[in-house]
Amino acid sequence: MVLLRAHLGEALRRARQEQGRTLRQVSADAAVSLGYLSEVERGQKEPSSELLSAICMALDLPLSRVLTEVAQSVLVAEPTRLTVVGVGGVASNAAKDIVDAA
Amino acid sequence: MVLLRAHLGEALRRARQEQGRTLRQVSADAAVSLGYLSEVERGQKEPSSELLSAICMALDLPLSRVLTEVAQSVLVAEPTRLTVVGVGGVASNAAKDIVDAA
Repeated sequence: MVLLRAHLGEALRRARQEQGRTLRQVSADAAVSLGYLSEVERGQKEPSSELLSAICMALDLPLSRVLTEVAQSVLVAEPTRLTVVGVGGVASNAAKDIVDAA
Repeated sequence: MVLLRAHLGEALRRARQEQGRTLRQVSADAAVSLGYLSEVERGQKEPSSELLSAICMALDLPLSRVLTEVAQSVLVAEPTRLTVVGVGGVASNAAKDIVDAA
């Protein structure tokens, strides 16, 4: 199961590290405890929407950009789904062969 | 302040309604209570990552797609930021004029 908080935490940590800032600096700017921010970054805590906004503001990063990054990393992590195109004849037989072979 | 849960709730509600399904149907498929799903859709409850995944699965909607939609609606809701380009001369005077005129 793909968990949002894990991908969100990674994106926030990456942004902070790219800025060369410490947990201490960002947690102070966001007015959250250092331990809390650390747990959020490690995907161990679900941040409330209010605290997520505060962290984004402390990172000077629009929430929309964080979410776009998270959407991309979630997309990579999601299981690929096999879609069978066509409902008869060659296409469905070919698809059946693929499924049988798997 | 832009709140993730409000935009997330709207996206989930929109997806459910586009499928012509009721709160009762989706909550049963996701194994969450009807009241809980209703609160999530109205942006009154922060869904845990596990329950968000369950709701997405019940809607047969990849989490990545939900997040992409949410990123776009958050982008529209975010306050536009005026960035002053240039630190002196014509550019900064022009920027100052814009700020003064606002």
